[in-house]
Amino acid sequence: MAAERRPPAIITLTTDFGEGSRYVAAMKGVILSINPDAKLVDVSHCVPAHDIRAGAITLAESARWFPPETIHIAVIDPGVGSDRRIVYARIGTQHFVAPDNGLLSRLASWDKPSMIISVEEPEFWLSNVSATFHGRDIMAPVAARLSLGLNPERLGRPVEQLVVLPWPEVQQVANRIEGEIVEVDSFGNLVTNITKEMLQGVPTNEAVVISCEDHETQGIFATYSDQPTMTLIAHVGSTGRLELAVVDENASAMLGVRVGAPVCVCW
Amino acid sequence: MAAERRPPAIITLTTDFGEGSRYVAAMKGVILSINPDAKLVDVSHCVPAHDIRAGAITLAESARWFPPETIHIAVIDPGVGSDRRIVYARIGTQHFVAPDNGLLSRLASWDKPSMIISVEEPEFWLSNVSATFHGRDIMAPVAARLSLGLNPERLGRPVEQLVVLPWPEVQQVANRIEGEIVEVDSFGNLVTNITKEMLQGVPTNEAVVISCEDHETQGIFATYSDQPTMTLIAHVGSTGRLELAVVDENASAMLGVRVGAPVCVCW
Amino acid sequence: MAAERRPPAIITLTTDFGEGSRYVAAMKGVILSINPDAKLVDVSHCVPAHDIRAGAITLAESARWFPPETIHIAVIDPGVGSDRRIVYARIGTQHFVAPDNGLLSRLASWDKPSMIISVEEPEFWLSNVSATFHGRDIMAPVAARLSLGLNPERLGRPVEQLVVLPWPEVQQVANRIEGEIVEVDSFGNLVTNITKEMLQGVPTNEAVVISCEDHETQGIFATYSDQPTMTLIAHVGSTGRLELAVVDENASAMLGVRVGAPVCVCW
Repeated sequence: MAAERRPPAIITLTTDFGEGSRYVAAMKGVILSINPDAKLVDVSHCVPAHDIRAGAITLAESARWFPPETIHIAVIDPGVGSDRRIVYARIGTQHFVAPDNGLLSRLASWDKPSMIISVEEPEFWLSNVSATFHGRDIMAPVAARLSLGLNPERLGRPVEQLVVLPWPEVQQVANRIEGEIVEVDSFGNLVTNITKEMLQGVPTNEAVVISCEDHETQGIFATYSDQPTMTLIAHVGSTGRLELAVVDENASAMLGVRVGAPVCVCW
Repeated sequence: MAAERRPPAIITLTTDFGEGSRYVAAMKGVILSINPDAKLVDVSHCVPAHDIRAGAITLAESARWFPPETIHIAVIDPGVGSDRRIVYARIGTQHFVAPDNGLLSRLASWDKPSMIISVEEPEFWLSNVSATFHGRDIMAPVAARLSLGLNPERLGRPVEQLVVLPWPEVQQVANRIEGEIVEVDSFGNLVTNITKEMLQGVPTNEAVVISCEDHETQGIFATYSDQPTMTLIAHVGSTGRLELAVVDENASAMLGVRVGAPVCVCW
Repeated sequence: MAAERRPPAIITLTTDFGEGSRYVAAMKGVILSINPDAKLVDVSHCVPAHDIRAGAITLAESARWFPPETIHIAVIDPGVGSDRRIVYARIGTQHFVAPDNGLLSRLASWDKPSMIISVEEPEFWLSNVSATFHGRDIMAPVAARLSLGLNPERLGRPVEQLVVLPWPEVQQVANRIEGEIVEVDSFGNLVTNITKEMLQGVPTNEAVVISCEDHETQGIFATYSDQPTMTLIAHVGSTGRLELAVVDENASAMLGVRVGAPVCVCW
């Protein structure tokens, strides 16, 4: 693996530790102590605390943009110290190290892992493992050793299945698609689980009505700038999914809409 | 260009995406997929959403500290998807890729760009360009290709002029300089548009009165520590411009003063 | 020194500038202008403004995870421009550049510095030094030059002692240990100054009572997941010190407990 991987190895970090957390710095120090050439990239440390679902979305939507052989560490780990597993998974052309609590299940729903290993061999961990910070003591050193070419099969025994989080399913009936808000982005845009593929054949003009709680709008636009400021619009966003946005404003704050709100597309 | 540039190429990012935004991570992934050796540096992702003026200040005040040949990407882009241009500009010894909405105009007011190119050649972009995220789909891949030595003239056709934001002008009359607050820094210090050059010949002792809305102070000090805690003082800050600060406190919060407030220096 | 140090040199930054501060970007630009190969790692920029004690904890708890020869810059510097010194210190196998205001004193209490130099030689600084931003104008260029192999003895004259902050001491009497909360982490966990070494011989079952202001809990647990959600528990945290946590919640916010609150362990 090492011979094929182009240096420097990229290791990304996704956590719920908060910006400026010294726990992130500790993980980076551990990685660089093992592989000083590793290239560290922060995906996000602002995943809401203990929110595995949000972490799974953040990781899945980000990882797809990184090059093959990137190693992703994700630590949203409310069960640290319980008997939840830590896993290595090979998904597509990339590597993932995370607690097996559903955090990898969104990625795995898109692309079945070709290898899952239960991380059990303490040989590759820090010599003293705390009960509450496996990101630093187990996941960081394991990722650093993978970046130096360690064969992931040495980390532990193979596993058949990752723990799977249920994802809200989209209902499609004649002239009606029912989904929900699955993410609020940093601009307050409301991202749904309705993909552009599901919208094929749906009209984009005023014959289509998109509603969310008490709010509704007509038409599916190509971009924000097609409508006047302060207007609620629906458009297919940069993640390839239907989004609701208020032009030049924070839609979530203005409308009081949060993750989980139902969305209906009717025509 | 590539031969002259010392590896690794430095690419900086300035956006209004917010800390911990996965949109930033996506841009980094795109860049590293094209040039895994690029050295990524975050300038700021905390520019207030859609605030082109604040972004222009952040970029201009930061870029000056980076080495020649640094490539800066700036994405404060409320007009994404409209007909606003994306531009490459060579300013001084550095490279800039940004929407042409005024974001580069503060830099350009200091140092006339030696080359401006309208970014139009899709050959250098991601193959699927979304309507709402040109930072990821156009600017990131263009910057990554520049970092590998792409001649910027291949990006599109030359342009004569950047879009220019109006900047508040300082009025200088006998014994009186009138400016305004143009930035509040992270300590709450109030940064004006009055430069130390404009203050030449102005007394620094109690004969000079600096006023801002209802507040006033006498004298221009060399540093914060010349006065007791909680005192409002005026001094020439680290950006070479007159600042108002409250010793050991957040001046903006304490005084209720914001960007745009008028400042008068009288003697 | 340069010959022994393995490239790339790692330089970390710890400041109270706030996330997204362009002052951090300026420091990075200065470092990369001198040593473009330096590997920059953010420890934290979220140290509360002017809180030297919090900065000293953040730096000490983070630096220990980094490899030998890492260079750490720390800028929590309310006295900038006064006659406070800037120092270089060699502590353990690492290098530190900081104002001499107590910021290094927690580290130094664990491991006596083998060299302390008062940073006085302007030859290694930026040519124009502002009165209020020595992080950018003095500390960043000094660290960058150290990363290129500069002998720290050239920075100025040797100093005997660092400025020492008083640290709250733990009182140990028969069947009773009295300490205090010294840190609230990003999850709201309450970290005390009582180490696991001090707890040797103390029962961990319900015979031990841990109290903090009006709150109390029995037993010292191994991990968060041993108790139901919303329960106040005591455990030895990932820093090797006793912590109070509310399972799945923010203990500081729920209990209203802050740094400085007294903690008593009785059995």
